[in-house]
Amino acid sequence: MPRRHVDVPSLVTAAREGSPRAVARLITLVENADPRLREVMAQLAPYTGNARIIGLTGSPGVGKSTTTSALVGAFRRRGRRVGVLAVDPSSPFSGGALLGDRIRLIDHALDSGVYMRSMASRGHLGGLSWSTPQALRVLDAAGCDVIFLETVGVGQSEVEVAGLADTTMVLLAPGMGDGIQAAKAGILEIGDVFVVNKADRDGVEVTVRDIRGMISLGDRTEPGLWRPPVERLVAERGEGLDDVLAALDKHWEWMAGNGELQRRRVRRAQDEIESIALRELRIRMGDLSGGADVTALAERLVSGETDPYAAADEVLAQL
Amino acid sequence: MPRRHVDVPSLVTAAREGSPRAVARLITLVENADPRLREVMAQLAPYTGNARIIGLTGSPGVGKSTTTSALVGAFRRRGRRVGVLAVDPSSPFSGGALLGDRIRLIDHALDSGVYMRSMASRGHLGGLSWSTPQALRVLDAAGCDVIFLETVGVGQSEVEVAGLADTTMVLLAPGMGDGIQAAKAGILEIGDVFVVNKADRDGVEVTVRDIRGMISLGDRTEPGLWRPPVERLVAERGEGLDDVLAALDKHWEWMAGNGELQRRRVRRAQDEIESIALRELRIRMGDLSGGADVTALAERLVSGETDPYAAADEVLAQL
Repeated sequence: MPRRHVDVPSLVTAAREGSPRAVARLITLVENADPRLREVMAQLAPYTGNARIIGLTGSPGVGKSTTTSALVGAFRRRGRRVGVLAVDPSSPFSGGALLGDRIRLIDHALDSGVYMRSMASRGHLGGLSWSTPQALRVLDAAGCDVIFLETVGVGQSEVEVAGLADTTMVLLAPGMGDGIQAAKAGILEIGDVFVVNKADRDGVEVTVRDIRGMISLGDRTEPGLWRPPVERLVAERGEGLDDVLAALDKHWEWMAGNGELQRRRVRRAQDEIESIALRELRIRMGDLSGGADVTALAERLVSGETDPYAAADEVLAQL
Repeated sequence: MPRRHVDVPSLVTAAREGSPRAVARLITLVENADPRLREVMAQLAPYTGNARIIGLTGSPGVGKSTTTSALVGAFRRRGRRVGVLAVDPSSPFSGGALLGDRIRLIDHALDSGVYMRSMASRGHLGGLSWSTPQALRVLDAAGCDVIFLETVGVGQSEVEVAGLADTTMVLLAPGMGDGIQAAKAGILEIGDVFVVNKADRDGVEVTVRDIRGMISLGDRTEPGLWRPPVERLVAERGEGLDDVLAALDKHWEWMAGNGELQRRRVRRAQDEIESIALRELRIRMGDLSGGADVTALAERLVSGETDPYAAADEVLAQL
């Protein structure tokens, strides 16, 4: 495909002035791991750090899109500019299609105060833990006050992606054995606010009780720590939305008040730096692997003349 | 927990002589990323390269354990020593529990010619693409002629793990929309042999036709390339087992005859070397991240004084 010329400074300026088209093109650069990102990120840096990032995760079928849509509406009524970034950790192949081909958040499609974007990981070099923070930086610098980071609940990568938010909201639904299954160790550790959606259905009491029980089994009941609330919601009709918003606000104030927000952001920045550095190292190693030396090493490993640690030492010596 | 003293040379000798206990302890060292692995792998290296590794993957419910059990029986009847390594890419938290607490392959529990082991990824440093090849090396050096590498079908990590085998067999079942869903791009690319299990159920024709259709849409119909067969199986009763075995053997002979086996093994050895080298780099970077410098960098990133690429450059300069 022929690439259109991208003039980074004008794109960055246009994105900062709120051009959805410029924002979209910058996020496409992120998706494609474009080398010009280095320049883009350097120019965006001074304008970042303002957005409040809310992670939203849950198994398929719990109503993530409907809930996100309701929350977007609530923040819009407060006059906030809102971004929605939907990532699919389970889909290295689709290039965004799995989420992108759904018509998402149709209620807000014509609202110029809302940016929406879905993203899939492309290949292995870095993946979503590399690309997601950079996409968030674009939305942040473009003036979003609140960014919803939506991920499908599928194990480890979900936990990684959800860990990129200031507040992580875990969505469940009654009567889904899977919901509780998904709410095992990892989810309990990352959830700041739990929301049981479809709370007009049978079984909501059991689900709420199960989650409360699992939370209290954890380490989170010590005094001074945040105890994640469990809220009920019927996102389709907006019932319980105010309680969910109040819980999100309370967590935000708690974090801002005791330094936890800064601690989380510094830790995330550290991960972000590491993931970019690691990708750079992988690329350097990949360049090596393409060469004759590493192939010869691999052949010696296959024949049992060397072992994988000794071979790795040789590669590292060449870096 | 107090650690028992492990004498590596005697453990390696015992494992090579077929002690299931020694094999189990060596694989535990792999699971725990024990520093003594360097020594273990150096001593095992000369005895590796004999095992034929058959990957077996599929969604939950398609009958992976029953199928593995039937195949293990078939290879035992041929007089082969068989290893089974079951890995769960979706479970970074359980430490093997999810698979380990099932009573697996009970038919072969008392057969001294069969080793069985399940393994989960622990944490992020390397993960299953780091540990699986090393566990396979242990089973290989312990004299297994055939090793089944069983993984649960859950996206990208499954593809990575399945890619560690000589032959990858994808298991499906009729009437599972999920089965076909799972059989999207990634699975089609890695499958060498497709097996529709539970072939006595309704819908088997549709499933077989769907898979054939998807295969022929791919690049695999060019002359000279392997065209993955689609076999039917009722693993519980052993119906179709001979056809599945014949397909596996045919793929093995095809690979051995045209050099593909060696090519695959060299490529895997390259990945193995890279993954050990990368883990080493991550550890070095983690050591840095624990230090004051990277925290200070991360704080400057949060405040917008630097950008992630410039910060990563500073980290790389320190490595």
